[in-house]
Amino acid sequence: MTEDVKSQNAKASGIWGGRFNAGPSAVMQAINASVDVDKRLFEQDIAGSLAHARMLAACGVISSEDEHAISSGLIAIRDDIIAGDFEWKPELEDVHMNIEAALREKIGAPAGRLHTGRSRNDQVATDFRLWLRGALDDAAKGLRAYQEALVKQAETHADWVMPGFTHLQTAQPISLGHHLLCWVEAAERDRGRLLDARDRLNESPLGAAALAGTAFPIDRSMTAAALGFDVPMANSLDAVSSRDFALEALAAAAITAVNLSRFAEEIVLWTSGRFGFAQLTDAFSTGSSIMPQKRNPDAAELVRAKPGRISGALQGLIIVCKGLPLAYSKDMQEDKQLVFDAFDDLALAIAAMSGMAADLSFNRETLEAAAGESYSDATDLADWLVRELGMPFRDAHHVSGSAVKAAEAKGLPLKDLPLSDYQAIEPKIDERVFSVLSARASMESRTSYGGTAPVRVMEQVKAWQEHFEFELDLYDTGDDGEMA
Amino acid sequence: MTEDVKSQNAKASGIWGGRFNAGPSAVMQAINASVDVDKRLFEQDIAGSLAHARMLAACGVISSEDEHAISSGLIAIRDDIIAGDFEWKPELEDVHMNIEAALREKIGAPAGRLHTGRSRNDQVATDFRLWLRGALDDAAKGLRAYQEALVKQAETHADWVMPGFTHLQTAQPISLGHHLLCWVEAAERDRGRLLDARDRLNESPLGAAALAGTAFPIDRSMTAAALGFDVPMANSLDAVSSRDFALEALAAAAITAVNLSRFAEEIVLWTSGRFGFAQLTDAFSTGSSIMPQKRNPDAAELVRAKPGRISGALQGLIIVCKGLPLAYSKDMQEDKQLVFDAFDDLALAIAAMSGMAADLSFNRETLEAAAGESYSDATDLADWLVRELGMPFRDAHHVSGSAVKAAEAKGLPLKDLPLSDYQAIEPKIDERVFSVLSARASMESRTSYGGTAPVRVMEQVKAWQEHFEFELDLYDTGDDGEMA
Amino acid sequence: MTEDVKSQNAKASGIWGGRFNAGPSAVMQAINASVDVDKRLFEQDIAGSLAHARMLAACGVISSEDEHAISSGLIAIRDDIIAGDFEWKPELEDVHMNIEAALREKIGAPAGRLHTGRSRNDQVATDFRLWLRGALDDAAKGLRAYQEALVKQAETHADWVMPGFTHLQTAQPISLGHHLLCWVEAAERDRGRLLDARDRLNESPLGAAALAGTAFPIDRSMTAAALGFDVPMANSLDAVSSRDFALEALAAAAITAVNLSRFAEEIVLWTSGRFGFAQLTDAFSTGSSIMPQKRNPDAAELVRAKPGRISGALQGLIIVCKGLPLAYSKDMQEDKQLVFDAFDDLALAIAAMSGMAADLSFNRETLEAAAGESYSDATDLADWLVRELGMPFRDAHHVSGSAVKAAEAKGLPLKDLPLSDYQAIEPKIDERVFSVLSARASMESRTSYGGTAPVRVMEQVKAWQEHFEFELDLYDTGDDGEMA
Amino acid sequence: MTEDVKSQNAKASGIWGGRFNAGPSAVMQAINASVDVDKRLFEQDIAGSLAHARMLAACGVISSEDEHAISSGLIAIRDDIIAGDFEWKPELEDVHMNIEAALREKIGAPAGRLHTGRSRNDQVATDFRLWLRGALDDAAKGLRAYQEALVKQAETHADWVMPGFTHLQTAQPISLGHHLLCWVEAAERDRGRLLDARDRLNESPLGAAALAGTAFPIDRSMTAAALGFDVPMANSLDAVSSRDFALEALAAAAITAVNLSRFAEEIVLWTSGRFGFAQLTDAFSTGSSIMPQKRNPDAAELVRAKPGRISGALQGLIIVCKGLPLAYSKDMQEDKQLVFDAFDDLALAIAAMSGMAADLSFNRETLEAAAGESYSDATDLADWLVRELGMPFRDAHHVSGSAVKAAEAKGLPLKDLPLSDYQAIEPKIDERVFSVLSARASMESRTSYGGTAPVRVMEQVKAWQEHFEFELDLYDTGDDGEMA
Repeated sequence: MTEDVKSQNAKASGIWGGRFNAGPSAVMQAINASVDVDKRLFEQDIAGSLAHARMLAACGVISSEDEHAISSGLIAIRDDIIAGDFEWKPELEDVHMNIEAALREKIGAPAGRLHTGRSRNDQVATDFRLWLRGALDDAAKGLRAYQEALVKQAETHADWVMPGFTHLQTAQPISLGHHLLCWVEAAERDRGRLLDARDRLNESPLGAAALAGTAFPIDRSMTAAALGFDVPMANSLDAVSSRDFALEALAAAAITAVNLSRFAEEIVLWTSGRFGFAQLTDAFSTGSSIMPQKRNPDAAELVRAKPGRISGALQGLIIVCKGLPLAYSKDMQEDKQLVFDAFDDLALAIAAMSGMAADLSFNRETLEAAAGESYSDATDLADWLVRELGMPFRDAHHVSGSAVKAAEAKGLPLKDLPLSDYQAIEPKIDERVFSVLSARASMESRTSYGGTAPVRVMEQVKAWQEHFEFELDLYDTGDDGEMA
Repeated sequence: MTEDVKSQNAKASGIWGGRFNAGPSAVMQAINASVDVDKRLFEQDIAGSLAHARMLAACGVISSEDEHAISSGLIAIRDDIIAGDFEWKPELEDVHMNIEAALREKIGAPAGRLHTGRSRNDQVATDFRLWLRGALDDAAKGLRAYQEALVKQAETHADWVMPGFTHLQTAQPISLGHHLLCWVEAAERDRGRLLDARDRLNESPLGAAALAGTAFPIDRSMTAAALGFDVPMANSLDAVSSRDFALEALAAAAITAVNLSRFAEEIVLWTSGRFGFAQLTDAFSTGSSIMPQKRNPDAAELVRAKPGRISGALQGLIIVCKGLPLAYSKDMQEDKQLVFDAFDDLALAIAAMSGMAADLSFNRETLEAAAGESYSDATDLADWLVRELGMPFRDAHHVSGSAVKAAEAKGLPLKDLPLSDYQAIEPKIDERVFSVLSARASMESRTSYGGTAPVRVMEQVKAWQEHFEFELDLYDTGDDGEMA
Repeated sequence: MTEDVKSQNAKASGIWGGRFNAGPSAVMQAINASVDVDKRLFEQDIAGSLAHARMLAACGVISSEDEHAISSGLIAIRDDIIAGDFEWKPELEDVHMNIEAALREKIGAPAGRLHTGRSRNDQVATDFRLWLRGALDDAAKGLRAYQEALVKQAETHADWVMPGFTHLQTAQPISLGHHLLCWVEAAERDRGRLLDARDRLNESPLGAAALAGTAFPIDRSMTAAALGFDVPMANSLDAVSSRDFALEALAAAAITAVNLSRFAEEIVLWTSGRFGFAQLTDAFSTGSSIMPQKRNPDAAELVRAKPGRISGALQGLIIVCKGLPLAYSKDMQEDKQLVFDAFDDLALAIAAMSGMAADLSFNRETLEAAAGESYSDATDLADWLVRELGMPFRDAHHVSGSAVKAAEAKGLPLKDLPLSDYQAIEPKIDERVFSVLSARASMESRTSYGGTAPVRVMEQVKAWQEHFEFELDLYDTGDDGEMA
Repeated sequence: MTEDVKSQNAKASGIWGGRFNAGPSAVMQAINASVDVDKRLFEQDIAGSLAHARMLAACGVISSEDEHAISSGLIAIRDDIIAGDFEWKPELEDVHMNIEAALREKIGAPAGRLHTGRSRNDQVATDFRLWLRGALDDAAKGLRAYQEALVKQAETHADWVMPGFTHLQTAQPISLGHHLLCWVEAAERDRGRLLDARDRLNESPLGAAALAGTAFPIDRSMTAAALGFDVPMANSLDAVSSRDFALEALAAAAITAVNLSRFAEEIVLWTSGRFGFAQLTDAFSTGSSIMPQKRNPDAAELVRAKPGRISGALQGLIIVCKGLPLAYSKDMQEDKQLVFDAFDDLALAIAAMSGMAADLSFNRETLEAAAGESYSDATDLADWLVRELGMPFRDAHHVSGSAVKAAEAKGLPLKDLPLSDYQAIEPKIDERVFSVLSARASMESRTSYGGTAPVRVMEQVKAWQEHFEFELDLYDTGDDGEMA
């Protein structure tokens, strides 16, 4: 590389090289400032301050005039930020100090009264809980859309037969709708975890002050109610020091991502040339200018990868929190970047899966042909022997195995093996056996609760549809978990 | 790898080398056999088989005579195992095949009918859920004992004053009881997470068979009820393929371990010579034969370390499950070792913390002296200025800071700084200010809800005591989630 | 927890409940005792003690008679342990105290002189480094066997054509041998990491004593040399407190496991019915009694899962070590279980992959047919246009894309599309184009260094074979890193 | 909350809510586009393209005129980017396509010839390796600065005595310089790991093309040399598919972060009021407007937390890579964000620790007083008994323990216990014993290699100083690992 390229590198790597030469203050500011990350909390921060100011006035701690000045100042600042007319200053460290400084500039002295009976420690805990509550609600809503897309596909494909795999080897024929509903079940548990996390974190830290509470006659229930929290937290140290709520949210997110990654892997497999089970439209794959038939399932691959950063964030915050004594320690500042990144990724993964679930189209013939391969009806033969001839299951398995061997030797599927060959193995076998020997018959016979028979699948489809409607009604009452 | 295989290898050519020279079958058996790990599920496995056999008889799938033979055979096997009279055979791979083979040996042909309408895939899922349900219940009970120990200590020490730290620097005086109750709050959320995981996993996979359900007319609700499950799982693929229940349990365990590690760190600090806040008896520390006064807080250090293996198990299972297509894959066999190790460690950590919480004794004078250091009443001075003189909070902080500077220059605590010095800074300050200038006064003044004032702390103590009693009553109904 | 304590608990009140009712001493012993885990270090512990005793005698710190008594006692104990005639006592806590107590029993007073100038802190660090050194060497040797199996297969299949995938979509034809050599490259880097970890940890902590060194005139270089360490560690605090060597070893193990999991995934895919590229014999798959043609690739699935527990161990030890102040803390006791489990799993995974690499047999026709699908020669057409007609690459891609579209419309592969159709797109195309239009031609044409042309692949095969021989010669010098 | 606040929330959460309502193309672009992240590679991307273009011309694949046009176009684009005059377009997906499109705009047709014999797959692997090489070099340099600061402090404080802790309990007196040098040792191993990772990744993927190499007569050694790579990679599949180099770099970063977190924890402890061992200036702590004496060690706390995100990134990439088949999959796109974040954090942590290492000032009296507490000389008494009276070590420990008990009963340190009391325990003890009974004497006596005696510490200080100078000379040759 030429000298000029070298010097270019030197210039460009100023960000890095310079860091080590930077004076202490530059290093300290770089490691300490968080405003680039936490400015994302501006809305929650202002909502919290509005609630706090109104409560202080209601309790007589500040005057009604001061409260009005503070409130209108804060609302104006919020408008400025939304409009992009707000200058964030790293030297003011964080979102809280940036907004407070702006308030002082706007309204003067009364701004100094806002911080009565609170501190940055309870303030950031409040903001962060509010943000995370919203993110959890959004993720749960996104999963519902994903479920609805899956149920719709399941309804359409309830009686399509496909191979059920174990060890990625064809095992027994199943209903495609049944397969898709499996992911609806998983998503319902994922929603449950996200919403449990949401409910558990929905307590207000506001008014815990630095760590010990305050001597001012504040009303924490009032601010809690104004911000949609269920109750004020009962221990001020806990209010400013606990981050298990963020760990729980990240764990719920990571588990969701793992479940999504499993279906994503199936999409990659199904859309590969070797499987040929399904395809995605251009909306969810990338083409190639040179191989027009190629559709790389990029979105599915990216969803498959998402457990990486999300679980990494969980692990990261576990490491941060491990062994931290009470009360607030600066280590906790790391929580926000980890949570923001993880929930951004989760939202993307859910949206992409939701889109792909609706977008997938399936190849009926390929699926049905694949379902009939590999003696996938051997279990049905064994079950028939148990049911009709009263054989013990383990003996029936032995007989079925012998029949498969005989069929394989002749290069035939079980349904084409002559009756005489069956009777050579077990004389009691009769013509009726052929009724169970096909992929479709196999699928249709498994009518136990939760089984793959289309009649069972359609029952589940209906049950989900009713469940969705029922919950929608619930939401319509307005009790939808929004900040209220 | 089994101990036998290990010792053979060791003999062959050193502890390790032999492994690589072993024939394929030895390698395959070593990586494939799981009985050394999963034999721990024997009780659950037999409970599941008993329930399944009874249901098969009730549904007319097997005869009542066969059911009796099977049931008494299984009970005899369970007795053998408990008595240590059972030979586990690695070549039979796992707990299920070991027990089934023993049953065949004991009762002959009817043993072959037990496996009708089920497979190892739903069987292991059933066993594992039952085991984990018990482990979660036990962990929740253990945490309750830990909470009770903490609340008892909090009651005794509600009005003891100690330094409240931020950044491990003295910030404000707090009540020792208040500090201890913080960990009761955390443990309550931990219990909530463990019990939520317990409730969500309490559905029966039994009867899902290999993956697709079965054509036999089985009654899955009957086995579910017999095993204490809330309902049978609604999708057979989900029943055999989902492991998110184990991920959730591990996540709840990991978060619990993190919370425990934080208090463990405090115990290490408090019992160190530099802090001198508390000591453990010999029961929870190790002495030194040569330094009799030395008490190493080994148990606390080990609890501090426990998030390691437990979070590692969580991350391990996330990796295992990521990207796994339906339905059962052998990868899932890794789940049990990870979960067993994590819950063994969690049980130990909880028991140790429970013991230490009761065992700790505190040094009142040291705590109170430490609480008064470092101008920990400076915030109280500022608050007084706001409250009594109507200053804006930010201005009051400035005045308080000046007073601290003046006191520091004279080497005095704030309470000993002459009034004239105060008035030189702010003329309106009068004698009344001294009433708020002490660690105890500071603690007692913070009477906001959740605050550190002993009156508030005692309210929380009572609330917890009532909560414990109330829940105990609940448990007394006998509905304690045990296997029926 | 020891098996004894476990079974007592189990008797008391169920598998778990008892633990919480156990007295403090039982809990403390359960969390504190490590002998069940660390007894595995007995050989290293005795080797270390032998070296230490000889050095003490050589330096005149103990008498030659005492040294002889100690040495023969230790050797007798080692024989007892190997013969299974040694009783491990949990109440003696760990492997060190068990052996020391046995020594005292065997030889009386002189046993008390062995611990001069050392402590358990440097002793356990020495044992652990010795053990890990052996495990790293063994893993590296195992990987070499795996590489040799792969290179042998690559040689046999250097000119077999198969589809090269991107996004699991057929992209370009490649050599099967080329594909297999990719994993030889990865394994070589894995070996490098394992051996770098081995070299970096190969320093002796022995003689660092509790944390500060000793006043006895010991010769640490002598014990270091006797144990095969390169040098004694230069800082006594570092010697007893550092565990980064274990983190590095775990990281190398985890990365190795990830690389192995990738090839394992390919084995699962290739042996599935949908791919049909290859099969494993019974030695590395499990059959089904009922579907004789089914071969579940259990070993490959388990290898695919192994990054779970191994990476989990790495993350676990990171958590343990994070934020630990100097010097020895009890937390560090967690290191051994994590490392033992991870390296046991790694050894199994390597041995299984080594076996599977040799065991795999491939289906030539299926591979070649698959290689020709999906217009995998479209890039070759574009390259021909650049090379022969001088088109800019991006333009050539456009022309090639048009040809593929034309061929697809007629349901033909590129090689069967009439020349006139090509010329309708680009008049300058002539007959010569057909020479590049086949999977085999495509593969053979990519002769750039590192490319997939069989001639290049065979060069790499030879290079590896020479490399293996060369290293073998190196090893023959006997300098193989074993304990001296 | 009022209706207007609600609607504000609704508006502000457009980023989230909207995502799920967005059309497929918006979702796909959001999950697929990487330019926001990978534009950071622009310099490396252009360097790679320059090298590739020159090689293509040298090999006769493109004309010299085209090469000149391409090169000057690329240099102009680089200048634009550095000057901030470049518009990045998300719809062009990534840094590569953005730059190529700009080149086409600038120079027209010849731009289309640049991509001959390469693809985005080898291009991004090349860019990423170049970037990581630079980051690893920078981290190693940063650690050297940190070591130099520590060695300087160690030299100044070689004979300052402080308590050596085990279990955070005072164990034996040590030299402060000795303690600080422990972290120099750890940092040297960290540097070793970072530089080993650097060396192992320094191979060129360029020219591997999409996955299979190319039929163009390219010279990969030429581009490798131009970019400072040691050699071209030997297997084209490996070149585009391997990411173990990034895993290794992240592991080295994570281990470094763990080591730094341990010293960071000590800084938090040492600067706390309870320890009072040391203080940081304002440059590395944050004050409080109201408590002027308070110095929160924010920077140390943040470094203590940094293993979180860095280990999380490692875990994240392990998850991404686990089970990925060859060759390029889109999952790999996740690698860059994880690596960038981790190395940004590592650079900050190193710079902050480097600054704090120099900034710390220590309190000699407090340290020395603390060193003498807790009978920290009890081991010295035992050692004296062994050395002077020939007692077995274990017996000597027993005698020393009795002496400590006697001294404790009288409330005296060992040095003040009358000789008669010693003789009552062991008659052979004489006056000489008092020479070893002080913290300083204890420290000075431990002269074994690696021990804490100041004379040993100063030897290590000199050894490090010479090592630094020696390496500096090495660097002066210009072989400093820069892109050349």
